[in-house]
Amino acid sequence: MATKSTQSIRIVKVNATAGITTTDALAIEEPLEIRLEHGPETQRQVQNISVTMRTPGHDAELAAGFLFTEGIIKNPEDITSIEHCFIACAENKENVIQVSLNPGVVPHLQNTERNFYTTSSCGVCGKGSINAIRTVSSFAEQTTDHDTIQADILYRLPELLRRYQRVFDDTGGLHASALFTPLGELLLLREDVGRHNALDKLIGAALHYNWLPLHQTVLLLSGRASFELVQKAAMAGMHIIAAVGAPSSLAVELATEFNITLIGFLRDERFNIYTAAHRVLIPSYENTY
Amino acid sequence: MATKSTQSIRIVKVNATAGITTTDALAIEEPLEIRLEHGPETQRQVQNISVTMRTPGHDAELAAGFLFTEGIIKNPEDITSIEHCFIACAENKENVIQVSLNPGVVPHLQNTERNFYTTSSCGVCGKGSINAIRTVSSFAEQTTDHDTIQADILYRLPELLRRYQRVFDDTGGLHASALFTPLGELLLLREDVGRHNALDKLIGAALHYNWLPLHQTVLLLSGRASFELVQKAAMAGMHIIAAVGAPSSLAVELATEFNITLIGFLRDERFNIYTAAHRVLIPSYENTY
Repeated sequence: MATKSTQSIRIVKVNATAGITTTDALAIEEPLEIRLEHGPETQRQVQNISVTMRTPGHDAELAAGFLFTEGIIKNPEDITSIEHCFIACAENKENVIQVSLNPGVVPHLQNTERNFYTTSSCGVCGKGSINAIRTVSSFAEQTTDHDTIQADILYRLPELLRRYQRVFDDTGGLHASALFTPLGELLLLREDVGRHNALDKLIGAALHYNWLPLHQTVLLLSGRASFELVQKAAMAGMHIIAAVGAPSSLAVELATEFNITLIGFLRDERFNIYTAAHRVLIPSYENTY
Repeated sequence: MATKSTQSIRIVKVNATAGITTTDALAIEEPLEIRLEHGPETQRQVQNISVTMRTPGHDAELAAGFLFTEGIIKNPEDITSIEHCFIACAENKENVIQVSLNPGVVPHLQNTERNFYTTSSCGVCGKGSINAIRTVSSFAEQTTDHDTIQADILYRLPELLRRYQRVFDDTGGLHASALFTPLGELLLLREDVGRHNALDKLIGAALHYNWLPLHQTVLLLSGRASFELVQKAAMAGMHIIAAVGAPSSLAVELATEFNITLIGFLRDERFNIYTAAHRVLIPSYENTY
């Protein structure tokens, strides 16, 4: 069954001279409930882990990526199957997905409650959130300084993203995450109404292909770089993150702690480097940062 | 103690000709834990309700607005106090806030678990989410068709928003929600790294001023219109929502159900009307929508 990401609708289009009735496309937003089946063979249980508002499509990747970036599972082999549940519903939508784990795997479910935001030692603060990631991440501390990218390749990435971002073209309404090689070749692109979902889908696909840790790649984010997105990228072992929009203070702090290169405002042949500038090769710049 | 919304940082600014080291401003992102103290006088209890990544400032409004738009409390009088908790933390940040309710008030805490996304009748689907809002909202079904707005006033709103959006100017990194009169006068503006937080702060402030339901106002969103934002606006009794970006399918469905006028792509003297177009007065357009 083909999954639809857009929906047609009648709208009134207004400009300074007139209003006309016409047809337009909307990005579809629907809830997805992620369920986890786990436990030893004699004692299997199913738990509702999360409900997220997402654009249908790549739901299995979204579920796997979410479980991985939240630290609930560690390896692709932990998963035996991922399947939509068909639940009696007048709308007949595929909005529940179940991930089944190997009987030997114990999921780290305390992470879902703590959300990386709280630690017992210090209430909630950015520093506590960063330390929590350190304890559950397999790859975040494996950073090397060998990965580099040239400034003129970075300039090209937003245009490449746009060229391949089909649903955005139709609706103007989707966030994207894209993975490139350091030479600027597109490896993967995922879109969603939720920016965290687009990145979870991307990481879920990479997990499925056994590409993790994602060293020697460049992540491009179509919008802003928040703490949550840098956290997910760190969990997947990414070293270079470029965003078309602005980063937040805590995103920069996290990137600093994990020696991740964070680039913002990548557009119109310009960008800012916020952290680990040594990985970006810039002509006519003596890098003493 | 003055709350800082931005932070200075050293960055490398790169363009086609050079890279220079300079100073830039970042939008601050920090976690806020919202705690609720409730119960009869002899049996008070404190519960952790939510942790959200927000930009510090207007935290009390954020907490009150969140509790109201999630349907946990119904009236401003339910609240006796809202105070930051000072917790031993090396960073010494104000990241925990406690809302205390009148002893007679029973908070609707099942709503936090269900998140408006699930109903027992139908698993999860958009229709279920919309029905859930219907059962907890005080104002969403009070819509009237008396509120109107002129197209040429709508055109002016994004420019007004920008003029007053101070932190965005500094950082390029904040979402905004603004409330205008139908004549285009700014009533309230709130900013945050999270778009849902900006709207919760706005609604929390309106709640404090006893302005609810927010009939006869126009809500302007600096970005896209998602289900979550239209849901919060519906809870506050808003009738006209205009977004600079695109709406999602479920945002349009929700606006249709509650007879809310939803406008998208409001920029450069153009906009699209997705629902309830009768409230928008357009010269030279015979409204038969």
